[in-house]
Amino acid sequence: MTRIDCKRCAELLSESDNYLILTHRNPDGDTLGSAFALHRALAAAGKKSTVRCIDEIHPKYEYLWEGAACGDIEFEKIIAVDIADRKLLGEEFDKLYGDNVFICIDHHMSNREYAENLLLEDCAATAEIIYGVITSMGVEIDSGIASCIYTGLATDTGCFMFSNTTPSTHRIAAEMMEKGADYITINRIMFETKTMSYLRLEQMAVSSTEIHFGGRCAVMTITQEMFRKSGSNESECDGIASIPRKIEGVMIGATLRERNDGSYKVSLRTVEPYDAAKICARLGGGGHSRAAGCEFNCSLDNAKAILLETIKAELK
Amino acid sequence: MTRIDCKRCAELLSESDNYLILTHRNPDGDTLGSAFALHRALAAAGKKSTVRCIDEIHPKYEYLWEGAACGDIEFEKIIAVDIADRKLLGEEFDKLYGDNVFICIDHHMSNREYAENLLLEDCAATAEIIYGVITSMGVEIDSGIASCIYTGLATDTGCFMFSNTTPSTHRIAAEMMEKGADYITINRIMFETKTMSYLRLEQMAVSSTEIHFGGRCAVMTITQEMFRKSGSNESECDGIASIPRKIEGVMIGATLRERNDGSYKVSLRTVEPYDAAKICARLGGGGHSRAAGCEFNCSLDNAKAILLETIKAELK
Repeated sequence: MTRIDCKRCAELLSESDNYLILTHRNPDGDTLGSAFALHRALAAAGKKSTVRCIDEIHPKYEYLWEGAACGDIEFEKIIAVDIADRKLLGEEFDKLYGDNVFICIDHHMSNREYAENLLLEDCAATAEIIYGVITSMGVEIDSGIASCIYTGLATDTGCFMFSNTTPSTHRIAAEMMEKGADYITINRIMFETKTMSYLRLEQMAVSSTEIHFGGRCAVMTITQEMFRKSGSNESECDGIASIPRKIEGVMIGATLRERNDGSYKVSLRTVEPYDAAKICARLGGGGHSRAAGCEFNCSLDNAKAILLETIKAELK
Repeated sequence: MTRIDCKRCAELLSESDNYLILTHRNPDGDTLGSAFALHRALAAAGKKSTVRCIDEIHPKYEYLWEGAACGDIEFEKIIAVDIADRKLLGEEFDKLYGDNVFICIDHHMSNREYAENLLLEDCAATAEIIYGVITSMGVEIDSGIASCIYTGLATDTGCFMFSNTTPSTHRIAAEMMEKGADYITINRIMFETKTMSYLRLEQMAVSSTEIHFGGRCAVMTITQEMFRKSGSNESECDGIASIPRKIEGVMIGATLRERNDGSYKVSLRTVEPYDAAKICARLGGGGHSRAAGCEFNCSLDNAKAILLETIKAELK
């Protein structure tokens, strides 16, 4: 598979008329904002497209497709956005579409290069790359596209707080605000609204937090029981994994989330110089240098023990 | 007193050689970032200055004056930064300096115009105006100045989240990052560090939260016992009063904080169109339209009952 740039991606997109745009499972603001920005831009260029995700999309994202609804279409080509690995399509979608992804637009270092690959690892969000593609397509950015791109930028950077934020992220945000992105509403929905059930979950998760290695590591656990008791669910938990690393003195923060099937999803957040991607790679996972993930198919105690051993080696 | 622009301010600053720069009491990132950015720029222009504040400055701001310490000097002129009203100098400083402020650089609509006034109300932070002044002075922005300006921008906008953020705020932030602002460390210190004791307090406070009037009002209580049990204290609780209003569907969020003497301080946060100042005024308090406060000298139950009755009338 070859690497392409935004200009080449725009050229390739001009060659067909009907696209299926795929987002990753457990969809977040960047994969969704990117997908619907592209969907809107393709429509502006006279093409048809539809966005699909294997998981349900949280209703808070509704504004992304407001006035630009996606119906069923006969598609010719498949675009994957913000999907580093075919597996992240979800099993069923991977089987259905994984072999036939035409272009992958992504910013993850751990990208598996399974398609024509527009991969820009220095971008804070895939939405930054989508901005480049849309500009290369010659499509004028309207307020709908601007809100989608702003959503990707803001959600993948914790509202311009995380270390992945670059001058370019800020400048594109500025332009999107000028093009009519409804940033006040978006910021309120994404960062300033919490459900009572989420707050209860956060409370339980914080009580579970263990501090290790002289305060340099914190491990938080979210169990299925906590989901049940709080009434919360995965779709509300976007930002929860950042909590352990926020504790004063903590350099490596880990969140273990129990899945339905009893396996554990680990989210790792680090402070420089600790490399989250490197630690997770040792455990079969991947991601970015400050935020990465991996999985465990064992008991919580064993998962924690293995994780802590790997972190200990890194802290030395 | 006359209104001046950045260019005129730079001209006026060129006319003397020794300045006293004053910040407001309870100093925050914008007043301090603005003051030390100006102090550093004046030094680069071959002038002497010193920064003073009536209150102690939290050690987390130390990087603002690192390598640019302020000694005692004989000053000719006084500059006030981010100070809308002389009273905000603090009583003693107002008596000492209030009559003789030469230039006031500020962004508050409520500014009382007590000096040559560089007032730009559309700026999210006074640091944005300082950026304009330093540019007009012809001083090159180094990493020290960049970190000071970035601090003001980021802290006064909740890291670019609040509705006062503008495209210009983002663009200046981008430039400051390029000029060497240590934004990763600054964001971590300002937004991403919580003590374990604070997290414990937050947890207890959230469990205390009651929902009223069909989910439109949330009331959170923080008792002295919670402070004792968590090990936290008032100085860590800057943002805690915003929690109840963040709950989905809540239009009016109230936090009752028990004081040492057993009285209760109420912080009210509202969503448009509900007026926090109006509600608090009915209870003998005051503030802004979205954030206001009042006090109760009675039992918690009575305080809550009176508060809820007043809120109920407003919600009707």
